[in-house]
Amino acid sequence: MKISKPFCLWFTGLPSSGKTTTALALKDKFTESGINIVHLDGDVVRKGLNSDLGLSKEDREENNRRVIHVSEIVVGSGIPVISSFISPYKSTRDFAKLTIPNYIEVFVNTPLKECERRDVKGLYAKARAGEIKGLTGYDDPYEEPLAADIILDTVDHDLEENMIQIISFLRQQNFIN
Amino acid sequence: MKISKPFCLWFTGLPSSGKTTTALALKDKFTESGINIVHLDGDVVRKGLNSDLGLSKEDREENNRRVIHVSEIVVGSGIPVISSFISPYKSTRDFAKLTIPNYIEVFVNTPLKECERRDVKGLYAKARAGEIKGLTGYDDPYEEPLAADIILDTVDHDLEENMIQIISFLRQQNFIN
Repeated sequence: MKISKPFCLWFTGLPSSGKTTTALALKDKFTESGINIVHLDGDVVRKGLNSDLGLSKEDREENNRRVIHVSEIVVGSGIPVISSFISPYKSTRDFAKLTIPNYIEVFVNTPLKECERRDVKGLYAKARAGEIKGLTGYDDPYEEPLAADIILDTVDHDLEENMIQIISFLRQQNFIN
Repeated sequence: MKISKPFCLWFTGLPSSGKTTTALALKDKFTESGINIVHLDGDVVRKGLNSDLGLSKEDREENNRRVIHVSEIVVGSGIPVISSFISPYKSTRDFAKLTIPNYIEVFVNTPLKECERRDVKGLYAKARAGEIKGLTGYDDPYEEPLAADIILDTVDHDLEENMIQIISFLRQQNFIN
């Protein structure tokens, strides 16, 4: 596996939909092939780059704006990027598409019920208990992508199948060979 | 030339000292060897990632804070970074050293008089005319690095000599081979 042209795989989806899990597995796959990829993840970025931001609509947009510009710089340097962020607003994703070279939208299309069942970080439970507010999917909107390049099904397909789906797409579109 | 371990070359110096020029030439050198490097540059970053920030001390620190975290992520992904920022405060550079793996401080030690003579972007002229305020070196402080890993002389040494100095350092310290 070799990179023909750098790209940005932009994972969007509800909390606990499987964005980070898929992104990390994919990153490992590339690392095994000797390819360095930058992975920008919502939780990681919120601890460093965006530690000054909260969960208001304004802050969410600023959070994504910064990550979009970082993705732009890294892809512009010839290095592939995986970005995994809830990125609930269509306007934000449209801005990403406009800004980042070779932007590929990956919609991790896990139904809300399944995300609530998984609840990896216990966020849905906290939201139900009234301990947190503004959880995407629960009491904050998620605008579903209508024209994603890749749509992942994490209920009927396992991680390996999803990775094959992504890698096949990258091959078909001549991003890797 | 191959990367043995990723690093961050952090260029600091006055406006028009030669940070961007040296960084770009060095990036080209790596590109010629088939090595992708991410170059984070003050002017570029201020147009995208940090377009919301001004030149106050607070904003300068925030500007550098964000870039430090981006450098941290990229180097952490195994990819070398060149960061070229005035970064006038010792406290900021100390934070960079603490945060970014394999941080290498490069002091572009061009005297103020020579920077004013070059005045690549016409900033010193604007400052003298009273059109801008808070120009580092003119009416804003620059805290000179006291323990930089590499000190460049851009008056008596040319670009090629400076690149050899940097690459020799990287070889000696086993960052490249």
